[in-house]
Amino acid sequence: MTIITLLTDFGEQDGFTGMMKGVILSIAPQVTIVDITHQVEPQNVRQGAFLLAQAAPFFPAGTIHVAVVDPGVGTARRPMALRIAGQTFVGPDNGLFTLLMQRADETNQPIEAVTLDRPEFWLPEVSHSFHGRDIFSPVAAHLALGRLLSDVGTRLVNPVRLELSAPVKTVDGWRGEVITIDHFGNLITNLDPSHLAGDFGVTLMVAGQRINGISQTFGDHAPGDLIAMVDSSGQISAAVVNGSAAQQLKVKIGDPIRLIHSPRASHAGS
Amino acid sequence: MTIITLLTDFGEQDGFTGMMKGVILSIAPQVTIVDITHQVEPQNVRQGAFLLAQAAPFFPAGTIHVAVVDPGVGTARRPMALRIAGQTFVGPDNGLFTLLMQRADETNQPIEAVTLDRPEFWLPEVSHSFHGRDIFSPVAAHLALGRLLSDVGTRLVNPVRLELSAPVKTVDGWRGEVITIDHFGNLITNLDPSHLAGDFGVTLMVAGQRINGISQTFGDHAPGDLIAMVDSSGQISAAVVNGSAAQQLKVKIGDPIRLIHSPRASHAGS
Amino acid sequence: MTIITLLTDFGEQDGFTGMMKGVILSIAPQVTIVDITHQVEPQNVRQGAFLLAQAAPFFPAGTIHVAVVDPGVGTARRPMALRIAGQTFVGPDNGLFTLLMQRADETNQPIEAVTLDRPEFWLPEVSHSFHGRDIFSPVAAHLALGRLLSDVGTRLVNPVRLELSAPVKTVDGWRGEVITIDHFGNLITNLDPSHLAGDFGVTLMVAGQRINGISQTFGDHAPGDLIAMVDSSGQISAAVVNGSAAQQLKVKIGDPIRLIHSPRASHAGS
Repeated sequence: MTIITLLTDFGEQDGFTGMMKGVILSIAPQVTIVDITHQVEPQNVRQGAFLLAQAAPFFPAGTIHVAVVDPGVGTARRPMALRIAGQTFVGPDNGLFTLLMQRADETNQPIEAVTLDRPEFWLPEVSHSFHGRDIFSPVAAHLALGRLLSDVGTRLVNPVRLELSAPVKTVDGWRGEVITIDHFGNLITNLDPSHLAGDFGVTLMVAGQRINGISQTFGDHAPGDLIAMVDSSGQISAAVVNGSAAQQLKVKIGDPIRLIHSPRASHAGS
Repeated sequence: MTIITLLTDFGEQDGFTGMMKGVILSIAPQVTIVDITHQVEPQNVRQGAFLLAQAAPFFPAGTIHVAVVDPGVGTARRPMALRIAGQTFVGPDNGLFTLLMQRADETNQPIEAVTLDRPEFWLPEVSHSFHGRDIFSPVAAHLALGRLLSDVGTRLVNPVRLELSAPVKTVDGWRGEVITIDHFGNLITNLDPSHLAGDFGVTLMVAGQRINGISQTFGDHAPGDLIAMVDSSGQISAAVVNGSAAQQLKVKIGDPIRLIHSPRASHAGS
Repeated sequence: MTIITLLTDFGEQDGFTGMMKGVILSIAPQVTIVDITHQVEPQNVRQGAFLLAQAAPFFPAGTIHVAVVDPGVGTARRPMALRIAGQTFVGPDNGLFTLLMQRADETNQPIEAVTLDRPEFWLPEVSHSFHGRDIFSPVAAHLALGRLLSDVGTRLVNPVRLELSAPVKTVDGWRGEVITIDHFGNLITNLDPSHLAGDFGVTLMVAGQRINGISQTFGDHAPGDLIAMVDSSGQISAAVVNGSAAQQLKVKIGDPIRLIHSPRASHAGS
């Protein structure tokens, strides 16, 4: 059974994602549908890109991911599908797949992309505001039935890529930013262990607070402690043990983070 | 594999919908269960009726929909099942299926309805407050296994119908209301393209604001613009591009909407 | 098809539960995955224990429940699996399974428990903060494929049990507490019909309000009435008809409840 995943900013209240599932199962009754999330911040393509790239590697080859964070729906932005490393991605050509394409570039994996321009694989009637239901879901279902990318679209040479703010080297470390905030209020940054400094200790500065060292785990600290750690996706993040760093520090997505390499600080990380 | 959908006002926090799925899969392990929504406003039968009627057409024939917005659970209100256009609906006889019955009437489709009165198809113990789990889920599962409506109940002649406020003709157009507000804060009205006026331009008035013309899509406008459009379900709705009309205009479900036919206004729609 | 359920405090926004499903389906593509809830209060093991024990009986024998409310992830707390009454439970050894073990003791059912200590059934890389994805999900999938508890771990003699506050007998009845608050704002207590007093009437006292008698159902009362009832899980609860008792009375989980046996009060319950 092919897996089709859904990632959107539709929320769960209106039945929009239920309609997408109805459309998919009408065409391909045998697929297994999995929700990744429907709580991307409305229109936040950047956050959607991050969450998709974070989740996709945990699905098997052959999985088809439908991702819809689509402020330009109904305009000239193209609908697209993309194949990378044995998985297929279907959604708007607005940068939502940037991180997946970056990862493919970094690992020398080929990227196959098409513009979806074959209405025979869409719903008969296409609305101006819900391509997730009318184009992306039926195309994903037809791909699950064995259609090729080249059946459902025409080769797309330069898919849109977001300008992602990469960490910037500073005189004593790196300047990064908060790229997402999770359900627990943990602040996920665009810094990762490659920005740590070998034998040097580090200090993370966020919202005027200093966090010395990188901790291995929440559980070694007292509730309420502000700590930095490498999270389960490999990003450096700031967290309050059994609490919400976002609430306590009043931090928002996009806020700056400084990582300071300090030869004098004790080395708390591994 | 038969599809069983669930639509309730139970929320997702308490495991109530998980219990329903456990009951269904205990009886009919092969069904595919799809959530439409569990975030109907508590006890808002009218909103539930709208969301169900909006989603059902996107599911294949043979789908069984379990819908539970049930303020009268445990009283004399009857449990029922309904077959319309090849789909089956199971839930309380409190008006939740009004729009589906209206649509059947309008398209001359027969309606087959039964009161659920055969406890042998229910859980052995039936609580006073959770018929979704104890009656509707097991009945749906037995229907998925091939039972007929006439097996699980007795013919029901006049299912309850809600008094739905239809748009009212005014001297210069129509007066309608906001029937639901979606996750994006878009205001969905009970007006549809049949209330537009052919070659006449229109103005939508909501919360003291005038919106001239019907737009084709969000993407052609600047973020923050207040627009009117025909949404993906065919209803006229008011939206703030990349924002929340509900928050910006402080509008609630039930608030009035005026649609004014104006021969002088330019015609922005199609 | 084996059912694997998921119950966590991860919320639905970050894709964490999607990753768990990707891991499970990568190993055991044929399982049916059911969400019980992902909205346990962050780190509230006690609430997770209650919701799991409430939902589990509605699933068939053979079901595997993955439960992750895990403030001690990454510390010395052990990962475990448990078999009770034909169902299997996988999660942290932190008391999350207390109520299930209590129920097994009360009904003389054997409990088989193991510490998960065979990394060959885990993901190749195990993070310090997401054992739900890296240990519990893959172990559950291997169990679904037919592995025995004794394959995936070593016998665990004394799983951790929470100190649960049992109701206390008072001179005129019982003193209990609010153990959870549901989506509707109903206050679920640790009192049950065994604490009622046969032929005696009862008064429930909560937040300074008196509720006389136990009602059969919401529907027999006027909207806004404050009532006590035996809820669908068999617990005595306080509810505002078509409203939220939690909001109206400003009650929190853990707040005290008094049940007073009063020979003079009329007996409204059954």
